[in-house]
Amino acid sequence: MRSPLSDKIIEVKPSGIRKFFDIVSEMEDAISLGVGEPDFDTPWHIRDEGIYSLEKGKTFYTSNAGLKELKIEISNYIERRQNIRYDFNKEVLVTVGGSEAIDVALRCMLNPGEEVIIPEPCYVSYVPCTKMADGVPVIINLKNENRFRLTPEELEAAITDKTKVLILAFPNNPTGAIMEKEDLEKIAEIVIKHDIFVISDEIYSELTYGSEHISIAALPGMKERTIMINGFSKAYAMTGWRLGYACGPEEIISQMVKLHQFAIMCAPTTSQYAAVEALKNGDSDVEEMREAYNQRRRYLIHAFEEMGLPCFEPGGAFYVFPCIKEFGMTSEEFAIRFLEEEKVAVVPGTAFGDCGEGFLRISYAYSLDNLKVAIGRLSDFVKRLREQGK
Amino acid sequence: MRSPLSDKIIEVKPSGIRKFFDIVSEMEDAISLGVGEPDFDTPWHIRDEGIYSLEKGKTFYTSNAGLKELKIEISNYIERRQNIRYDFNKEVLVTVGGSEAIDVALRCMLNPGEEVIIPEPCYVSYVPCTKMADGVPVIINLKNENRFRLTPEELEAAITDKTKVLILAFPNNPTGAIMEKEDLEKIAEIVIKHDIFVISDEIYSELTYGSEHISIAALPGMKERTIMINGFSKAYAMTGWRLGYACGPEEIISQMVKLHQFAIMCAPTTSQYAAVEALKNGDSDVEEMREAYNQRRRYLIHAFEEMGLPCFEPGGAFYVFPCIKEFGMTSEEFAIRFLEEEKVAVVPGTAFGDCGEGFLRISYAYSLDNLKVAIGRLSDFVKRLREQGK
Repeated sequence: MRSPLSDKIIEVKPSGIRKFFDIVSEMEDAISLGVGEPDFDTPWHIRDEGIYSLEKGKTFYTSNAGLKELKIEISNYIERRQNIRYDFNKEVLVTVGGSEAIDVALRCMLNPGEEVIIPEPCYVSYVPCTKMADGVPVIINLKNENRFRLTPEELEAAITDKTKVLILAFPNNPTGAIMEKEDLEKIAEIVIKHDIFVISDEIYSELTYGSEHISIAALPGMKERTIMINGFSKAYAMTGWRLGYACGPEEIISQMVKLHQFAIMCAPTTSQYAAVEALKNGDSDVEEMREAYNQRRRYLIHAFEEMGLPCFEPGGAFYVFPCIKEFGMTSEEFAIRFLEEEKVAVVPGTAFGDCGEGFLRISYAYSLDNLKVAIGRLSDFVKRLREQGK
Repeated sequence: MRSPLSDKIIEVKPSGIRKFFDIVSEMEDAISLGVGEPDFDTPWHIRDEGIYSLEKGKTFYTSNAGLKELKIEISNYIERRQNIRYDFNKEVLVTVGGSEAIDVALRCMLNPGEEVIIPEPCYVSYVPCTKMADGVPVIINLKNENRFRLTPEELEAAITDKTKVLILAFPNNPTGAIMEKEDLEKIAEIVIKHDIFVISDEIYSELTYGSEHISIAALPGMKERTIMINGFSKAYAMTGWRLGYACGPEEIISQMVKLHQFAIMCAPTTSQYAAVEALKNGDSDVEEMREAYNQRRRYLIHAFEEMGLPCFEPGGAFYVFPCIKEFGMTSEEFAIRFLEEEKVAVVPGTAFGDCGEGFLRISYAYSLDNLKVAIGRLSDFVKRLREQGK
């Protein structure tokens, strides 16, 4: 029998996070600081709205692009938070999480061989989805000394005649980096000059600490060349509901609706009803969770300072990205030894790109109690390594 | 500004069903017999299990391939109903409806230029998803005189050196045709001889009238070259839950899990809990709905006989596919005039392929009362056309 598989899917590497958690899942009683998922249950009033919709028998397909009421709320929310106006009827598509939105956007935008600029370290899906859409990933290695922001020089150097799309993902997973208005303005200028497009993954937009999130789509001349991706997973602790959205120019969104219709049909109906409630009455939940994350973030930064572990101060998301280069081990070696010796799982930085070498991703979507135990063990581990190194 | 779009997505035609329903949605008080969706709410005990999971706070991601408990129930169900054994851990992927499973299977299996044989009339997604996966659709026009079954001669004539996959979709949307064991055996022989693979869309497998559904994967030598697609939408009236699955050889399923993980993450969690209940305790619901569909089906066949409209007797799904060639109009002209003059919406057969010309798809996923009113109007319309034709 010949191979049933496409060459393309064979070439796509499995996720490094997944590989690591296959090891973790074999170990009992390990503490995990590995997962990128809020530790909070979805707020009760949001779940209750989902329950109510099920009680009323709302178990049918919605229209392909999403419930009208939800698209209106999404449009209102973005105007309220980002001051960008999207026509709910033509410029909004409700998707199965942010993940589907990214995949569908790339599939609708890329011709074979067109290049997609992907600043790393970043979320694990951008490279594989680009390859599966026949695009060519062009990696920019972001630097710790730039606080993991994308600089105009880095972007300019990566652009070629074949560049079609820049994927911008701030607040960033795994670094926690953010981009501020003046950073984005310089990026926008280059994007417009070279006539390229931006897929802006803003799934962590509600989780910034100290400064408000700014979307690149809000800058002059950028709305028409940006697909803004967002969703309910992180801000409202709704990961399992699988609900996200894409907003952008009608020309692109209408094609994305077409592909979404054939490949997915519509996003889950119960989740859409719950999401309407989240947008209408969920602001205070977001605020509370943000405050809890921020408390943990400050605890971690302080703890790393105390143990003398260099750690860039993250401005968003729920990750810290400490540097472990002093120990002369790869990130994977460090993470595996830490897991074996101290039974705490963190993700090697290399799971998010080669330039993550020498770093660890530690998620603080875990209770402070949990974090304190785990960080205590990290402190012991680091001390032991330093003593052994003497 | 240059075009942001890929050539491929522009070439994909929008769905003919959708185009038609854009017209319908403008009309008030039209009766629709157009939608391919059960008219039943999801049975209460299944909804209740979804509700219970929300109350318990089960709002997190499941593992990428799906809840272990659900994969076990799917595997048990297929063994019980089809006598095929799939390893729940390696040969089952839980997806966002059957739609995602088809799309992901094609993306994992096709190299550019490889041919996919698609017997038409058929569901609207196969051709676009094949094109988006760089495959070349090769259409077989199924014939009324063969009761819209695929014949071995038709298949043999369509196979070339480039053929990789045959999409088999029985019970069929839109014709209601089924394939029986002896039909499938002849097809399997050719598939094995030419070393090609089958994507078998069995979403209507629970809706057969008079004979039990047989999967081609159950035939000798076929399990290893078949991706069986199924889901909860049709059998359990769970369309809005967006839950389906693919079963097949580990070699293919493991790659599909990888793509699913990057592009979708996991199927909706609430739906997965509800689906466990559906498989455990939903047999009698399926039986009841099947009986209701069958009653409507017999009513329709009788009604078409009475009005002298040739209609192949469907053995499955919930559609009839009457022939309207005597009126010398295209299917679209007929459907639009019928809608305008009698305010009943049915779908032109051409929405499912060119060879649907001269046919209409009428869904009987509508109450008998509704059907009676609509069919009364069809009878009037047909009479009037015949009188005008004299």
